[in-house]
Amino acid sequence: MNDNTSEKSRLTLLGLGAMGTALARAWLAAGHPLTVWNRTSSRAEPLAAEGATVAVTVAEAVTASDLVVICLLDDASVGEALADADLTGKDLVNLTTGTPAQARARAEWAERRGARFLDGGIMAVPPMIGAPESGGYVFYSGSRALFDARHSALAIPAGTVYVGEDPGFAALHDVALLSAMTGMFAGISHAFALIRKEDIAPKDFAPLLVDWLTAMAPSAYEIAGHLESGDYTRGVVSNLAMMVEGNSTLLRTAEEQGVSAELLTPFTALMERRLAGGHGDEGTTGVIDLLTR
Amino acid sequence: MNDNTSEKSRLTLLGLGAMGTALARAWLAAGHPLTVWNRTSSRAEPLAAEGATVAVTVAEAVTASDLVVICLLDDASVGEALADADLTGKDLVNLTTGTPAQARARAEWAERRGARFLDGGIMAVPPMIGAPESGGYVFYSGSRALFDARHSALAIPAGTVYVGEDPGFAALHDVALLSAMTGMFAGISHAFALIRKEDIAPKDFAPLLVDWLTAMAPSAYEIAGHLESGDYTRGVVSNLAMMVEGNSTLLRTAEEQGVSAELLTPFTALMERRLAGGHGDEGTTGVIDLLTR
Ligand SMILES: NC(=O)c1ccc[n+]([C@@H]2O[C@H](COP(=O)([O-])OP(=O)(O)OC[C@H]3O[C@@H](n4cnc5c(N)ncnc54)[C@H](OP(=O)(O)O)[C@@H]3O)[C@@H](O)[C@H]2O)c1
Ligand SMILES: NC(=O)c1ccc[n+]([C@@H]2O[C@H](COP(=O)([O-])OP(=O)(O)OC[C@H]3O[C@@H](n4cnc5c(N)ncnc54)[C@H](OP(=O)(O)O)[C@@H]3O)[C@@H](O)[C@H]2O)c1
Repeated sequence: MNDNTSEKSRLTLLGLGAMGTALARAWLAAGHPLTVWNRTSSRAEPLAAEGATVAVTVAEAVTASDLVVICLLDDASVGEALADADLTGKDLVNLTTGTPAQARARAEWAERRGARFLDGGIMAVPPMIGAPESGGYVFYSGSRALFDARHSALAIPAGTVYVGEDPGFAALHDVALLSAMTGMFAGISHAFALIRKEDIAPKDFAPLLVDWLTAMAPSAYEIAGHLESGDYTRGVVSNLAMMVEGNSTLLRTAEEQGVSAELLTPFTALMERRLAGGHGDEGTTGVIDLLTR
Repeated sequence: MNDNTSEKSRLTLLGLGAMGTALARAWLAAGHPLTVWNRTSSRAEPLAAEGATVAVTVAEAVTASDLVVICLLDDASVGEALADADLTGKDLVNLTTGTPAQARARAEWAERRGARFLDGGIMAVPPMIGAPESGGYVFYSGSRALFDARHSALAIPAGTVYVGEDPGFAALHDVALLSAMTGMFAGISHAFALIRKEDIAPKDFAPLLVDWLTAMAPSAYEIAGHLESGDYTRGVVSNLAMMVEGNSTLLRTAEEQGVSAELLTPFTALMERRLAGGHGDEGTTGVIDLLTR
C-alpha cells in the first residue's frame, strides 16, 4: 500500500463521457496525477473537485503529460480533437472503440507524428471500471514497449490483456467477442420468446438457460481444435447430420409457439449447406468456412 | 451402496440407438432388471450379454414391465412402434425428441389407452448418460404422480428436472435451450471467422471467448426481470441506443475482415426496429416482443 502520488507519473485523459469519467475516477482514486480535457468543459467540473487538473485546450492537455489516454466517441472524433496537437515523443493510448482498420490507420497516423501508439478495446461497462472484482478488462495491441513501460498506470482502471503488435488486434478481439455475444443474445431472445405465452416464469427459466449456455460455451475449445488441426470431425459427439435433423424440431416448435424463426434460420441454413457438401460427420466448424469469403 | 437387484422394479426400454443403448447400460450398471426391444434386433445382442432381457416384439416388451421408457428416432416412430400395444395400466415415459404439440398429443393418445404419461427432453449426449459428474439431465413434464412414483429409476441415467403437468413443457424447455445454444454457436462461428485470416491462434482466442460468453450469459437474469416486471429499462447499463451504435462497428469489422454478416444482421435489424419504436433506454428485451406474433 502506497498512496504517495509523487511516485506516479502524470497522465492526461481526453474525453469525459460515461467511460472517460469512470477511467478518470479510477486513476484519481489510485492517486495518479491526472490532467483531463473534454470538448464540453462543464463535464470536467466534478473531476476538478476530485483533484484532476482541467485543461482548457487539447494542446494544453497533451503538453501536460507524456502518457495521453484517449476515450472519445469514435475514431473520427479522435482525428478531429487531435488534428493540430503536437504528439512528438508522446505515448498515445487510444481506448476509443473502432474497427481494426481504423486502429491500424490511427497507429500510422500517430507514428507519423512522432508518438508511440497503443490501441485498446474496453471489455467493461463504466460501473466495472476501478472494480477489479468485476472481471472487466481491456484488450491492448500495438507498441509492446509502450504497454510494458506504462503497464502500472494502465492496469489501474481494469485488467489488461495484450494481444499483439498489430495495432488492429485489440479492436479485432473486442469486436469478435461482442459479435459472439450478439449471437448469444439472439439465442436468448428466441428462447424467451418461445416460453412467452406459456405458464412458465421467466425467473424460473433463466437459471436453466444460464447454466446450459455456460455448460455449452466451452464448445469453442473443440472448434479451436478443429481449426488448428484442419480436422473438423475430431471429438465430435453430436454431428452435423444429427444437428440438422434436430433443427427441424427447433423450427417446428417456433412455428407452433407463434415465434418468428428469423434469428435461427441463417445458422440452420449454413449447417444445411455444409451438410449438403458431404460433411455430416463434422460438428459446426465448417460453417466458419462458409462465412469467410 | 446396495446392488441387490431384487429391490428394483423391472423396466422396459424401447429403442437401442446411440441414446437408448447408453440409457440401457446405465440401468444395467445400477442393477435394474431391464427388458429391451429394438426394431433391428441385432442391436440388442451386446446388451443381452450385459444382462438385459431381449423382447422379440413390442407387445412382449410392454407386457414385461409396468414402467415403459421409449427412446426412438422421432414421434412418428413412437406411434408406429406402439400402434397395437396394450398400454392399460402402464407408466409410459417418452424420451423421444419432439415438439411441445407432439408431446401433448402423445400424452392424450397414451391416456386414451389407459396409461399414465411423462414426456422427457434429454439435455445430454450419450457419453454423459450414467455419468452424474457430466451435468447431463432430463427435463420431465406430464404426470407428476408418475414422476414421483418412478423417480428412483428415472434418476439413474441422468439428473431430473420436472417442469410441470403440461406434457409439452419438457419439449418446450429442451427446444428453448437448444435454440439459445444455436444462437450462441452462430455467434461463436462469426467470431472465429473474424480472426480466421489473422495471425491469431484459435487456441489462444478460445479461452477469451469462453470466459466472455460465460460472463455475459447471466444477462438472461436481467431479461427475465424485465419480462416479469414489464419494465425493460430496469438495471440497464448498456442501453439499446448505445448497442445499435456499437453494432455498426461490428458490421464494418465483418466487412473489413471479408466475413459475411448474415449471422449478425437479423438481430441487429430487430434492435434497430425496437430503437426506432422509441425504446433507446431499454436493453435488448424488447426484441422478444418483436419475435412473438
Ligand atoms: N460506455 C460503455 O459502456 C463503453 C464500453 C466499452 C467501450 N466504450 C467506448 O468508450 C468510448 C467512450 O464511450 P462513452 O460511453 O464515454 O461515450 P459518451 O458518454 O457518449 O461520451 C462521448 C465522449 O466523446 C466526446 N466527443 C464526441 N465527439 C467528439 C468530437 N468530435 N470531438 C471531441 N470530443 C468528442 C464527447 O464530448 P462531449 O461531452 O463534448 O459531447 C464525450 O466526452 C466509445 O468509443 C465507446 O465505444 C464505452
Ligand atoms: N444422441 C443424442 O445425442 C441425443 C441427445 C438428446 C436426445 N436424443 C434423442 O433420443 C432419441 C434417440 O436418439 P438416438 O441418438 O438413439 O438415435 P439413433 O441412434 O438414430 O437411433 C434411432 C432409434 O430409433 C429406432 N427407430 C427409428 N425409426 C423407427 C421406427 N419407425 N420404428 C421403430 N423404431 C424406430 C431405431 O431403430 P433401428 O435400430 O431399427 O434403426 C433406433 O433404435 C431421439 O429422439 C433423439 O433426438 C438423442
